[in-house]
Amino acid sequence: MNDHPSAALAAFAAKLRAEDIPAAVLRRSEDLFLDWLGSTLAGKSARAVQAIERYALAMGPTLRNGDAGGAEVLISRRLTSPHFAAMVNAAASHVVEQDDVHNGSVFHPAAVVFPAALATAQATGASGREFLAAAVAGYEVGIRVGEFLGRPHYRIFHTTATAGTLAAAAATGRLLGLDAETMLHAFGSAGTQAAGLWEFLRDAADSKQLHCAHAASAGLASAWLARDGFTGARRILEGEQGMAAGMSSDADPARLTVGLGERWATAETSFKYHASCRHTHPSADALLALMREHRLGADDIAEVKARVHQGAIDVLGRVVVPATVHQAKFSMGTVLGLVAEFGYAGLDEFDRHFVAPRVAEFRDRVAMQLDAEVDAAYPQRWIGKVQVRTRDGRILDARVDQPKGDPGNTLSRAELEDKARRLAAYGDAATPAEMGTLIAGVWALERTPHIGRLLGT
Amino acid sequence: MNDHPSAALAAFAAKLRAEDIPAAVLRRSEDLFLDWLGSTLAGKSARAVQAIERYALAMGPTLRNGDAGGAEVLISRRLTSPHFAAMVNAAASHVVEQDDVHNGSVFHPAAVVFPAALATAQATGASGREFLAAAVAGYEVGIRVGEFLGRPHYRIFHTTATAGTLAAAAATGRLLGLDAETMLHAFGSAGTQAAGLWEFLRDAADSKQLHCAHAASAGLASAWLARDGFTGARRILEGEQGMAAGMSSDADPARLTVGLGERWATAETSFKYHASCRHTHPSADALLALMREHRLGADDIAEVKARVHQGAIDVLGRVVVPATVHQAKFSMGTVLGLVAEFGYAGLDEFDRHFVAPRVAEFRDRVAMQLDAEVDAAYPQRWIGKVQVRTRDGRILDARVDQPKGDPGNTLSRAELEDKARRLAAYGDAATPAEMGTLIAGVWALERTPHIGRLLGT
Repeated sequence: MNDHPSAALAAFAAKLRAEDIPAAVLRRSEDLFLDWLGSTLAGKSARAVQAIERYALAMGPTLRNGDAGGAEVLISRRLTSPHFAAMVNAAASHVVEQDDVHNGSVFHPAAVVFPAALATAQATGASGREFLAAAVAGYEVGIRVGEFLGRPHYRIFHTTATAGTLAAAAATGRLLGLDAETMLHAFGSAGTQAAGLWEFLRDAADSKQLHCAHAASAGLASAWLARDGFTGARRILEGEQGMAAGMSSDADPARLTVGLGERWATAETSFKYHASCRHTHPSADALLALMREHRLGADDIAEVKARVHQGAIDVLGRVVVPATVHQAKFSMGTVLGLVAEFGYAGLDEFDRHFVAPRVAEFRDRVAMQLDAEVDAAYPQRWIGKVQVRTRDGRILDARVDQPKGDPGNTLSRAELEDKARRLAAYGDAATPAEMGTLIAGVWALERTPHIGRLLGT
Repeated sequence: MNDHPSAALAAFAAKLRAEDIPAAVLRRSEDLFLDWLGSTLAGKSARAVQAIERYALAMGPTLRNGDAGGAEVLISRRLTSPHFAAMVNAAASHVVEQDDVHNGSVFHPAAVVFPAALATAQATGASGREFLAAAVAGYEVGIRVGEFLGRPHYRIFHTTATAGTLAAAAATGRLLGLDAETMLHAFGSAGTQAAGLWEFLRDAADSKQLHCAHAASAGLASAWLARDGFTGARRILEGEQGMAAGMSSDADPARLTVGLGERWATAETSFKYHASCRHTHPSADALLALMREHRLGADDIAEVKARVHQGAIDVLGRVVVPATVHQAKFSMGTVLGLVAEFGYAGLDEFDRHFVAPRVAEFRDRVAMQLDAEVDAAYPQRWIGKVQVRTRDGRILDARVDQPKGDPGNTLSRAELEDKARRLAAYGDAATPAEMGTLIAGVWALERTPHIGRLLGT
């Protein structure tokens, strides 16, 4: 009865203990948590995020220190119920596009896993070690669900939103101590609420924040409801009227369970270096490498061909002239223009320069082109290839096999700390001293007996 | 910019005034509201509904009379925020399978429209007339979205859950006074949260209640967020990466706008007579007609062929031996067994007799068969055809063209009052005296200056 893929995945998530997880993976989960905290704090002042916090304020309770079961909204330092803390923190964590991504699944795990796990851990007083194990459970589940749903799914659906409900349910369920059977019910409730369409991209609408908010809160709700006896479909992923049947066309159930307990997908997750859609990073790094190698400035470049996979064209293809900073993060031309001009496409570079004349001129010199090798390697590998025609008539090529932040080219803890500090400062959401305390707390998580407030007093 | 179907539908919902709605349609919306109240009260003691109320209690605020912005959970008479009142009332309203249905869209409007509209009307102090206009806006939108998504959608997705988010957003947005542009944003946020898969049916899981809860609360949230400036996709329904692209295969955008302001889909909505899935009703009524005409008892019948449309086979086909009352409502054999035995498949009949030996024996004499005429007429018309082989060797046929409760064979106000009273008594959720007051209040809605509490004191 429990030998089908959904059940095997649920059993894995329910039974995963911290002692089963390699130390390097636990350390990586701390890295990922710090990276998520920075991303979330950076989202503090975004209009869409503040609207969701106002909604949470209107619809949810505001609790006081000492009230049972509270969880922290990081951007406002308000205590509320786990449902709404997860909702707002998730909305905040993805908006500056600096949160992590798993290449193979094209899934942003942190934005949905940590909001649900942190809210539940705070409300239940879980230990840091339990919290990390729960986060790993969420990553392993969400990544496999994303891989299972695959590329046809991602063409229309925002995988972080859809696979995200299951990832959030897995992390939450692990913290609530659900057994395998109950976890499977949580999966059923989560999967039947999985939603999120890419249509918003062409209008530069706020939906991405809603997608994360929805996935984290719906996934959290699914696990809490399951603990209370609420049942769900047993084959929500692979069943005849399940997620893949409705929202994919090449889903392979074997992908759900391959290497469970041996392959740690958590550790395959990439950190974002540039503050843009991950689909732009390989080209950006390739362009940087090319400019360094040939000592070119932006003015030396007449034309750039970014040779990409089809998924990049699907997601980025629509944005020609970006109307907002957020949309600019999905504009290949803008990203390459910033990189060419400043050597880096960070939050400040976007905010100050995304429509600067020189960047806009460069943008118009960029075109994307489907590349068979890049496309075949994707999504397991995100190869970056660019071809540049220089003003003086040379045709130059460059490639990177692992963009900065990928597992094989990852960020050091010093780089992660620096990134988190910059993000918090960008959001004006924590002082340098607070960030010092927060960072030390993350590195000490495994020895923390109870996860308490992170920022509020 | 606003001439595409999503925008036209949003503009219609935003601009619909009570004075534009024919009196007969307003009267029908009162009928539908009373019918919904009964269905919701009947759901009071269902385990899944109580779990959702406990979740709402844990995660949402509990308000007092006089607190600003409260809305009523009908089954517990608790005041909370509109988000959670909509969530719990929606969960309650569909569980006994007695709520209304629109045939052409295979959509249960009441279960998602009224929870969102009532919660918002109570929180904002709207008038009864505004409330009715908002409900009609929700019905007109949800039904057209269901028709648009069509049969390929319904094969995998629970249309009440998916189209329901837009229906709830339309009704809520109308009450919040959103203009056409803002309503379109609400649609975008609602549509990108649209979810709900049929997979749960084969496990008799609780997801149907979650689907309604999710649709009503997510739709409500979308409209409240839109009022606060939160934006959504402009073509969430018909866009290249919108709902139809992801979740249907024959969606025709013309269906979204045909007859807006002229054809009142609200008035096409059917009331349920039997307490089972609507797909069983045509066959049940045809069998009843046949038994009456030929004066047969259950024991005279050796075999029944229920001649049905494909949608009935898709939804009902899986349930062979029902394990729960809820699953029995999706068992054609059980429904026909109850009808043959008792002349009616009501809530009490299901509760007491769904596995009774005589009913189970009859169930095993029933088979479904795809019928070309029935299938071609569906979903515009739900024709019932049965063929019976009697113990004495006769082959008898019967048909009904409009099952009881359909617009052409509707329930009178006396029948609706009686049904609501029976439902409230079944749920042990209101006294006969309270139901008298409630019923009178519904018939006086159009003259009610502010929608207040319906049951709590």
